[in-house]
Amino acid sequence: MASVPQSEVDVLIVGAGPAGLMLALWLSRLGVVARIIDKRTAKVFSGQADGFQARTLEILDSFGIGEQVWKEANQMFEVSFWNPNPSGRIQRNSRVPNNVAELSRFTESVLHQGRMEKFFLEGIAASYPHPTSPAHQIKVERMVIPTSLSIDEAKVDDEDAYPLTVTVQHLTEEEATPTQRLSNLSDGLFRSNLTDDDVPQMIEQSSARNDKREEIIKAKYVAGCDGAHSWTRKTLGKDFEMRGEMTDFIWGVLDIVPITDFPDIRNRCMIHSASSGSLMIIPRENKMVRLYIQLTEVSAGGGRIDRSRITQEAIFKAAQKIISPYKLDYHYCDWWTAYQIGQRVGDKFSKLGRVFLAGASPDAVHTHSPKAGQGMNVSMQDTYNLGWKLGLVCKKILRREVLSTYEFERKQIAKELIAFDHKFSRLFSGRPAKDIMDETGVSMEEFSNAFNMSHMVRIATIRAPCEMGRTNHPSQFTSGIGVNYKPSALVSKPAEHRIVKTNLEVEADQNAAHDRAQSTLYLAKNCIPGMRFPSFQVIAHSGAQHWQLHHKMPSDGRFRLVVFSGDISQASRQNLVNDLGSWLSTDLLPKYPSITLSPGSEPHAGTMKFTPDRSPSIIDVLLIHTARRSDIEMLRDLHEVYHPFDPKLGWDYDKVFVDEESYHHGNGRAYEGYGVDPEEGALVIVRPDGYVGLVTSVEKKGWNEVAKWFRGVLRTI
Amino acid sequence: MASVPQSEVDVLIVGAGPAGLMLALWLSRLGVVARIIDKRTAKVFSGQADGFQARTLEILDSFGIGEQVWKEANQMFEVSFWNPNPSGRIQRNSRVPNNVAELSRFTESVLHQGRMEKFFLEGIAASYPHPTSPAHQIKVERMVIPTSLSIDEAKVDDEDAYPLTVTVQHLTEEEATPTQRLSNLSDGLFRSNLTDDDVPQMIEQSSARNDKREEIIKAKYVAGCDGAHSWTRKTLGKDFEMRGEMTDFIWGVLDIVPITDFPDIRNRCMIHSASSGSLMIIPRENKMVRLYIQLTEVSAGGGRIDRSRITQEAIFKAAQKIISPYKLDYHYCDWWTAYQIGQRVGDKFSKLGRVFLAGASPDAVHTHSPKAGQGMNVSMQDTYNLGWKLGLVCKKILRREVLSTYEFERKQIAKELIAFDHKFSRLFSGRPAKDIMDETGVSMEEFSNAFNMSHMVRIATIRAPCEMGRTNHPSQFTSGIGVNYKPSALVSKPAEHRIVKTNLEVEADQNAAHDRAQSTLYLAKNCIPGMRFPSFQVIAHSGAQHWQLHHKMPSDGRFRLVVFSGDISQASRQNLVNDLGSWLSTDLLPKYPSITLSPGSEPHAGTMKFTPDRSPSIIDVLLIHTARRSDIEMLRDLHEVYHPFDPKLGWDYDKVFVDEESYHHGNGRAYEGYGVDPEEGALVIVRPDGYVGLVTSVEKKGWNEVAKWFRGVLRTI
Repeated sequence: MASVPQSEVDVLIVGAGPAGLMLALWLSRLGVVARIIDKRTAKVFSGQADGFQARTLEILDSFGIGEQVWKEANQMFEVSFWNPNPSGRIQRNSRVPNNVAELSRFTESVLHQGRMEKFFLEGIAASYPHPTSPAHQIKVERMVIPTSLSIDEAKVDDEDAYPLTVTVQHLTEEEATPTQRLSNLSDGLFRSNLTDDDVPQMIEQSSARNDKREEIIKAKYVAGCDGAHSWTRKTLGKDFEMRGEMTDFIWGVLDIVPITDFPDIRNRCMIHSASSGSLMIIPRENKMVRLYIQLTEVSAGGGRIDRSRITQEAIFKAAQKIISPYKLDYHYCDWWTAYQIGQRVGDKFSKLGRVFLAGASPDAVHTHSPKAGQGMNVSMQDTYNLGWKLGLVCKKILRREVLSTYEFERKQIAKELIAFDHKFSRLFSGRPAKDIMDETGVSMEEFSNAFNMSHMVRIATIRAPCEMGRTNHPSQFTSGIGVNYKPSALVSKPAEHRIVKTNLEVEADQNAAHDRAQSTLYLAKNCIPGMRFPSFQVIAHSGAQHWQLHHKMPSDGRFRLVVFSGDISQASRQNLVNDLGSWLSTDLLPKYPSITLSPGSEPHAGTMKFTPDRSPSIIDVLLIHTARRSDIEMLRDLHEVYHPFDPKLGWDYDKVFVDEESYHHGNGRAYEGYGVDPEEGALVIVRPDGYVGLVTSVEKKGWNEVAKWFRGVLRTI
Repeated sequence: MASVPQSEVDVLIVGAGPAGLMLALWLSRLGVVARIIDKRTAKVFSGQADGFQARTLEILDSFGIGEQVWKEANQMFEVSFWNPNPSGRIQRNSRVPNNVAELSRFTESVLHQGRMEKFFLEGIAASYPHPTSPAHQIKVERMVIPTSLSIDEAKVDDEDAYPLTVTVQHLTEEEATPTQRLSNLSDGLFRSNLTDDDVPQMIEQSSARNDKREEIIKAKYVAGCDGAHSWTRKTLGKDFEMRGEMTDFIWGVLDIVPITDFPDIRNRCMIHSASSGSLMIIPRENKMVRLYIQLTEVSAGGGRIDRSRITQEAIFKAAQKIISPYKLDYHYCDWWTAYQIGQRVGDKFSKLGRVFLAGASPDAVHTHSPKAGQGMNVSMQDTYNLGWKLGLVCKKILRREVLSTYEFERKQIAKELIAFDHKFSRLFSGRPAKDIMDETGVSMEEFSNAFNMSHMVRIATIRAPCEMGRTNHPSQFTSGIGVNYKPSALVSKPAEHRIVKTNLEVEADQNAAHDRAQSTLYLAKNCIPGMRFPSFQVIAHSGAQHWQLHHKMPSDGRFRLVVFSGDISQASRQNLVNDLGSWLSTDLLPKYPSITLSPGSEPHAGTMKFTPDRSPSIIDVLLIHTARRSDIEMLRDLHEVYHPFDPKLGWDYDKVFVDEESYHHGNGRAYEGYGVDPEEGALVIVRPDGYVGLVTSVEKKGWNEVAKWFRGVLRTI
């Protein structure tokens, strides 16, 4: 075996599902040398996950691929609740909004995972728009399976070392095709948690071949995004086993173009039948509808069930029974599957700060039932959290110890998700009520309340986010906007926050520097450290175009310092903001490295025909003022830090914005939205993933907090 | 030459610029057998046209490619006027909005023609999403030049004949490259009207080759979209010569990333200097700016001027002088050119109803100065008008005589454009004022008024469109929304409209059937026959999603009958609308053919994995009601014509809409927008290109007008 090829890579990603692709997209934008391998022959073409949270759409949009999903997806606006009437016939009980207004500019949407994966691949390709692309361009390598992973523990603290050794096998097409497909057996259960793990068999088969193609990859980091029956997780050993429980509930899933007289087929519906179980309707793109169907006749009953009884026909018959007396038929079925409800989560998301686990598929690092539409979202958000940290550590910009915040932050979310799902899925599978008041089953009211509970939290999050930031708010967060990371080097909460400490917080504090920066929440009431920085419309000082502020904060690896200056036509405010400019450009920015921006992270990837010779600071300064646009001449009145000069590109006109009425698009009322008093102003640090790191004063006393915050996070030069 | 290959095609398009590509896109969506040839090696990659009118964006959006342009383009919201102060130094005189609110959901935008051409190519490819694409799939054939065109006049009335014979030559790469490029001479003037026609030379060269590759194409129709020095127009002979005049004014154009301290560089600016000429600034995508620069030192002086004096450097120096005392420099120039101002238009746009001319490049069928940003827009709108007519005639759905409306409608627009441009460009190039009140030159006020005049028309068009419909409104229409086609078989105006007849109207009347349908304008005050049907937000009856009504009217070749029914929860209105449904489904729709829809015309091209076996009627019925959504069950309460059944797809849930508040997106107030009284209702026929054909009553008396209208336009089966 002397001729086994060997190569080095900063990051090896195992698995090219949504979690792996999100990570690859990040790393491609950051220009990191990475590879992504997947054991299958092709991306997913139908079925699997389909729900997009508002937060996920914001994230995709920050990479320039959100609009495509938004355009193609079915946006769900309304939920209907159906329940049996006293004579047992289902009837519409109520209709409620599916989303909360003003939570995000996006709302919950549905599109199949395969389209999403396509947009990821296009987004990765867009990171390399120039004809002279780098040799390390990231492309998904399919039909490649890892067979061994070893860690040289002596080297894990050496940042220039490649302490990980992964052996991979290149498969034949037949080997890479799931055995269920080859054997023509119940195709729909492929990738279901009712299906056995076929990876060991794949490894065994391919290793036995005489002409096997083996390769050794030395890596600084490995990310296991290998979803179903995660090989990476299993390889890491006993400490990484999942904990939790399975239920007896079995549910089927059908993606069909329905032919039905059921009146609410284009609404999201929760149907509890009198005696045939429950059904959830998710209207999808392209006339398709997804049905989640409780299979009351095939209970797991303690052990694993007979898979041969779970067929497309059996699932469809169950759906017909629940929806009766309405008729249900179909000509076209896009996909089907079935799964056993359970909630499990791993205790460890990383090993030695070198191997990381992500994702929510049946056996990754957290697993749960799919009906709340959380799995793919939380998986992608796992690696959205991991990607920039890994990338900026590889580029020697971020302190390596920040990597520990990945497990710290995402395990919290996984546990909240599991708790939410535990409650939600049991309510949904509970013994159905005969009528609304029947206390022997799950009453419509109880169920509807549970649904609304998650809404209530979302409403509360918006109406009184400052309050929310202080409390340990419930785990329901189906929009993804409710995520609130706990204090760490990356999240500065105010002092009183840490009086009641959870274990996780104590742990975080131990890791943290003693002089950690502290936030002053009231200065930007709706910018909560640990939560995502919201987006409101602002007006470009030059050109007068209206922008969602998020559109000026793309996922390009940069931290943002958002300066809320108030009315800079007042001499004192203008002096203050220019003094801040001097301080930034002489005392803060020169301490930290610059970053090469991927052309793909620009809004108009690839249309510029030359590569600008610029390496902007890792800290991007954005100014939002409240003076009248016509009262301020940007180049004359404002410090150059707010319009940096580049010898090839001239001044940058894209960093100063006004909170005022737009020409044809209303008034964003951004100060009101962010909760900033124009008389007082604020400074907000936003992390590269869009989460608030620090809220402090725009006056001198705040500058010190800013300096402290970055000191705890970035390496100096 | 016995072996010259020969083939047949319904439509041959000469020229793959924006006009030719728009036509190819239409024909691809209609599944017509067509070819498109272009003499050059590749599409445009920089420079050329760059302005997009609101109407053009609506049209592109109707093909599913508008959002990409919208996203990448720079949207212009503000115009600054700069003029010399008493001491001769330029100063900002005023800032005004660049667009009129509520005219369209789009505003004027700038993106280079090359991106547009790319989106066209993608849009054409999207017409054939299925793996088993038809053999006649339209693809641009480059390096192909036509060398002869003959018309067999005996066959022009035979709809199955191919009366046109076109010989084409396949060029070598060297032949297809402009001589200016090969000879390394002033590259920027390639495609300028200051450059001589190189087509005769190309034909001569390629014909002289021993190994020349010749081909004969028999066609039913030929469309000459060959812009600069149109070969097609010249081939048609003396009758097709352009008429008009040239001026002495020479202007240069620079596309640069500017390095300047001029404060309004990201605004659209009109700068009149004291003694160095005028400059127009058009901020573009990707930090680029286009400068239109008057070259006062190189007047044409009656004859053609010495091209060697017009260099990139000379143009840049002129710009520096005008913008002084501000500094102007650049590192990157994307493109440059120069042109002589003139306005010319041809008298004939078609020959024998078989050969059609379109486009606005220097020598196509209308030509003018580029600064008003009209050329590419009017060119694309030429073929947007032609495409569906040609396509539906080829498919034997539309009466062949309707083809004459192409010249009738588009010549009117060309003449209006020329008149507008004549005034606008002379004002802009006029001798500059020393100060605002100086009457020896063009005063700022006069110029600004001219600019606002075009705005005023737009405002008037919206505020009192009914009034506008009655008057012969002025020709200024820089947004493209003001286009108002005169009465013809396709445009039914009310009787009083024809009392004062223009020559064109008399001509139109002569062509028209005697029993032409008549509109009743007051029923839908803002739906003017001859103008584009506007778009307002409505709510999908099923699913509650908000839609721009335009999104439910894609360019798929179908006519639309929009039923404004009022409140159908009232029994009398519900009966009326269902009686109308019966009449439509028994008396009207069965008379006319069905049409095969291209999967590419669906909003989510290519994601459906089977081709539905449906051929819907050429007339698409859309219902907009004002009842409360919850008071109407669509399948139960409404006639099936409003939710047609398909054995594979079930009922169509996408044809009934409500005018009410959306969940999170405001209230579209569509009835108010369209000017329809809910108590009265209306029927509106919208042509496949989105222009209003007829406005009539939803009561029985209106049905007869509808029947008459379609009788004059469609072939019966």
